[in-house]
Amino acid sequence: MKNISRNELTTLTQSAFVALGLSPADAGEVANILVMAELFGLTTHGVSRVESYGERLLIKGINPRPNMVVEQCAAALFKVDGDNAVGPLVGMRCLNVAMQAAKQQGVAVVLARNSNHFGPISPYSFLAAEQGFATIIGSNATTTIAPWGGSDARLGNSPLGFGVPNPKGPPFLLDMAMSVVARAKIRNAFKAGQSIPETWATDAKGVPTTSPKDALDGFLLPIGGHKGYGIALWVDMLAGLLSGAAYLTHVKSWLDEPDVPQNLGHFFVLINAQFLGNTEWLSERMNDFASILHGSEAADPQKPVMVPGEIELKKMQNHLQDGIPIEDDLLLMLENFSQGRFVKES
Amino acid sequence: MKNISRNELTTLTQSAFVALGLSPADAGEVANILVMAELFGLTTHGVSRVESYGERLLIKGINPRPNMVVEQCAAALFKVDGDNAVGPLVGMRCLNVAMQAAKQQGVAVVLARNSNHFGPISPYSFLAAEQGFATIIGSNATTTIAPWGGSDARLGNSPLGFGVPNPKGPPFLLDMAMSVVARAKIRNAFKAGQSIPETWATDAKGVPTTSPKDALDGFLLPIGGHKGYGIALWVDMLAGLLSGAAYLTHVKSWLDEPDVPQNLGHFFVLINAQFLGNTEWLSERMNDFASILHGSEAADPQKPVMVPGEIELKKMQNHLQDGIPIEDDLLLMLENFSQGRFVKES
Repeated sequence: MKNISRNELTTLTQSAFVALGLSPADAGEVANILVMAELFGLTTHGVSRVESYGERLLIKGINPRPNMVVEQCAAALFKVDGDNAVGPLVGMRCLNVAMQAAKQQGVAVVLARNSNHFGPISPYSFLAAEQGFATIIGSNATTTIAPWGGSDARLGNSPLGFGVPNPKGPPFLLDMAMSVVARAKIRNAFKAGQSIPETWATDAKGVPTTSPKDALDGFLLPIGGHKGYGIALWVDMLAGLLSGAAYLTHVKSWLDEPDVPQNLGHFFVLINAQFLGNTEWLSERMNDFASILHGSEAADPQKPVMVPGEIELKKMQNHLQDGIPIEDDLLLMLENFSQGRFVKES
Repeated sequence: MKNISRNELTTLTQSAFVALGLSPADAGEVANILVMAELFGLTTHGVSRVESYGERLLIKGINPRPNMVVEQCAAALFKVDGDNAVGPLVGMRCLNVAMQAAKQQGVAVVLARNSNHFGPISPYSFLAAEQGFATIIGSNATTTIAPWGGSDARLGNSPLGFGVPNPKGPPFLLDMAMSVVARAKIRNAFKAGQSIPETWATDAKGVPTTSPKDALDGFLLPIGGHKGYGIALWVDMLAGLLSGAAYLTHVKSWLDEPDVPQNLGHFFVLINAQFLGNTEWLSERMNDFASILHGSEAADPQKPVMVPGEIELKKMQNHLQDGIPIEDDLLLMLENFSQGRFVKES
């Protein structure tokens, strides 16, 4: 484990993507999102993704030199064709189109198709919040969840995130999947040889399991039963069905068919909070909102009440000051990739 | 129990609101939403609300003759001041403003303040879907949930709903609260003398309870722990904080202070699906989406996989054909109210 500065890690990650065929500008944009994930402590969605994105770039499952197309459907409504680009590139294009439009119209919705895994949602929400925009952002994903009451995986875990800006304090940031846990946590348990709680996932026949290996062959369980199932469906309807992307079982698995375009979809809903009141008004309400929550006595004195985003923003502060802790293996992979050595040594 | 036709129930409910001081047009609009709740089988949010809305109208806790004001903040962004009107009136004003704007801009966001309980969300989503709009609609509410890890009620159950239109088939309709169950279910259990599962709510000290009486003194538990807590907060930030309404503990309780304006807030996000593709394209994708879900073998053969909204739409079909079943007590209350007899006989 070694602490790496944000700049150093961004440069290294950018170099890896350049070696994988991206233009320097595109590589920098993708690196920026993945390094922001590391800043927030979202390690499962951080620079480790260079490897999985990279494997697909090498076999042309992802297009390293995309020609993304933005289509304006109405003053505040856009579609983006991602041309099978690396996901964070599509995400950043959507975000920039949405911010530009919401500056004028107060609101914007951008729907993307022909995309790939776009990293975590918090970095997009954070960048938007810094510019004064509230966000609702979602993506569909490879199928890992069964319909409520069903017996096979037919929908993705549908990551969904929200942000609300705070001009003089921490923004609100919520970034979640509809499953009780992310699939990456089950992969990590498997790698570490640990068992998992039986509320996390089922085996291939729909039976809850404590074996991460069986769970990886099965599917994830949604939060709140039919409610989480319903929200996951809605995310896919906006990100996949309405965007023109694939949805449900039409989404290709990047694990099973890494060489085939996934046709993932995303949605970005932006609201320009600057049209709603001035910065004093908004900051005062945001800070009052947080202090009402913090004022609730903790059931466990060791665990004070938190507002979503506080943990990530605290980690970012620490990582900007002390550097970002990166595992030796991960650092070696990044260095190898950045020098064009893509084959794992066995 | 008696079956009443939609028209008859609407006329009766409208008469009750006229007797309570509303204009005939406003009374008709409120009646329409509450009767749609009955059509969908959402009885806790249906015409029984005439009594609770009525009690507050009589003591001027709700304004029977409001002067609602619509403020256009940007081309696609609006604020509505509900002037403490009956909630469904504010809801319908928001919906109409949003539909008008989204016809032009493709998207619209309307935020309401100075409102009251606006009924269930499905009727609004259904009306919007019939006109080709996808919806995200939410409201804040009297505090009934503790912050995650906290020990007193500081946020509402934050009802949240989604709709997606289907020009040649059933729309997608999801209408949910962030609590495991609605508070009304606990009130019903209390009235029926039944105990409740301990996952529903806690007592006043934050300890899970099976007593509906203790639960009514305590607070509801959110779905998915910190995830449901986070979504509930986000709903309140959009419906309350950004709209200029009350939020969290600033929301007044209609039970404890029925004579005081609640200053509830709502949000309506509309997306005009007609700008995304033609009706054939959308219908085909919507029907394919549903059939993929229906195709998952049911874990319990008695309980086939459902798409959110199917149960409500089926009930509507039945109720339009056979009439809406209304309890004798409820019918008597409506008849009494419609003739200006507001005092309960004991």
